[in-house]
Amino acid sequence: MADLARLAVHLASFPTELDLGDLIPLARRFDLAGIGLLRAHLERYGLRDASRLVRDHGLEVTSLSYGGFFTAPDGAERRARIDDTRRAIDQAAALEARCLLVAAGGLPPGSRDLEGARHMVEDALAIVVDHAASAGVWLALEPHHPMYAADRSVLTTLEEALAICEAFGRDAPIGIGFDTFHGWWQPRLDELLQRLGPERLRLVQIADWPRGLTDPRYGRTVPGEGVVDFPLLRRRLTGLGYDGPFELEVPGGEVAGRDPAGWLRRLVEGWALRA
Amino acid sequence: MADLARLAVHLASFPTELDLGDLIPLARRFDLAGIGLLRAHLERYGLRDASRLVRDHGLEVTSLSYGGFFTAPDGAERRARIDDTRRAIDQAAALEARCLLVAAGGLPPGSRDLEGARHMVEDALAIVVDHAASAGVWLALEPHHPMYAADRSVLTTLEEALAICEAFGRDAPIGIGFDTFHGWWQPRLDELLQRLGPERLRLVQIADWPRGLTDPRYGRTVPGEGVVDFPLLRRRLTGLGYDGPFELEVPGGEVAGRDPAGWLRRLVEGWALRA
Repeated sequence: MADLARLAVHLASFPTELDLGDLIPLARRFDLAGIGLLRAHLERYGLRDASRLVRDHGLEVTSLSYGGFFTAPDGAERRARIDDTRRAIDQAAALEARCLLVAAGGLPPGSRDLEGARHMVEDALAIVVDHAASAGVWLALEPHHPMYAADRSVLTTLEEALAICEAFGRDAPIGIGFDTFHGWWQPRLDELLQRLGPERLRLVQIADWPRGLTDPRYGRTVPGEGVVDFPLLRRRLTGLGYDGPFELEVPGGEVAGRDPAGWLRRLVEGWALRA
Repeated sequence: MADLARLAVHLASFPTELDLGDLIPLARRFDLAGIGLLRAHLERYGLRDASRLVRDHGLEVTSLSYGGFFTAPDGAERRARIDDTRRAIDQAAALEARCLLVAAGGLPPGSRDLEGARHMVEDALAIVVDHAASAGVWLALEPHHPMYAADRSVLTTLEEALAICEAFGRDAPIGIGFDTFHGWWQPRLDELLQRLGPERLRLVQIADWPRGLTDPRYGRTVPGEGVVDFPLLRRRLTGLGYDGPFELEVPGGEVAGRDPAGWLRRLVEGWALRA
């Protein structure tokens, strides 16, 4: 049976209209260890109140989403996104979050320059990394499934993200958030995780990949209902010395909105009993 | 402007109900150099007649689809697929096809064992490779986009396919069919193509990746309408010494069924003028 003491849930699993004041106690009721937040939640609830609420319920903020989206069509917009990422770093620091997830951003509008876009990401990281270091915040690059390369993240593989981590070196607070839905198919996963090491693996997000995916936007499924070999993943991560959280992240749409407790139960039971 | 002398079209771009006796002359009318065939066409038309028809119109068979789908749940079915691939090799030989495209197959039903499935592919190739060699047929492994890993091909990246080619060595007729829709997003593409070399790159298939893909099953678009940087790809391939065909493959569904000539014109013009 899966280790529940390190289980967390990302609130992206629920519609963003739901109130943090309901969701946080819910996570507590399920004995979860932590919670992932969207910045939209902070805007609505206020950073200070959100932070207090999480702490009062004995939860860790396992991740904050997102900084990044660095691939903008012009310099002014790129600078705006860098500034926004600095603000996200400050928010993550105030929450004492385990990491700030960083999404690369897709191809800029009208552009086909994939390599150029990838360089934008590295250049922007070079600019924000000192701010992250002095704030004591880990940036966790999140490689996205290649089907999102055009629209959402030119950073697609663990290997690519690892190359960036290695270029910045061990002293830089740049690690990786590995999401099983995005990355389950990758060859040489074991070798790449070994090279990354447990400290720089800031987060493992859990969602399953269903057979016969028809819509990339709503593709994820409950752990145990898809093809991801979670027992193998856990053995690998244990072998690696990873002792960070497993953060469930499966957007449940309407179902999760109607019955958040029921949805969270499905996720937790999927992980505990079937994954 | 793109090199049209090496342009081909795969008949998977048209509904399979269309008659080879109409499609082959159509390809000739557009001055194409070659044609990719589905084995379904051979079944309907007869291998000998299909072969004669293609030659009479001065076309090369740039590819035959598919051998492979080696990832079967039990030994009997795996042997059946190996036998079927041997038959496909014989068909490719009779057609003097430039290559037989080989699809790996997805995860076997009920299985989550991705590595095991990948080994099945290598094991099956080791069994059929001698038959391919004595028939004078190149097997072209086709890495599929990772969004098809569960259902259609556990072989996802150029790097993985290249590792298989390298394991079999330069004397084995095992190369790669690179499809821009499947592989445009890959990091280190240049380096991997260099390692592969022009002889083992048996085929380049052309389809564009649209922004905002909503359905993986019908995702491809006409060259020039998506995000693939075809001029860059052509420069890379020229640098590599690739002198093989560019084979258009964009399933046009109903539109292509109603007006095959109009659909082929769209593909050719997309490639020639906008890609």
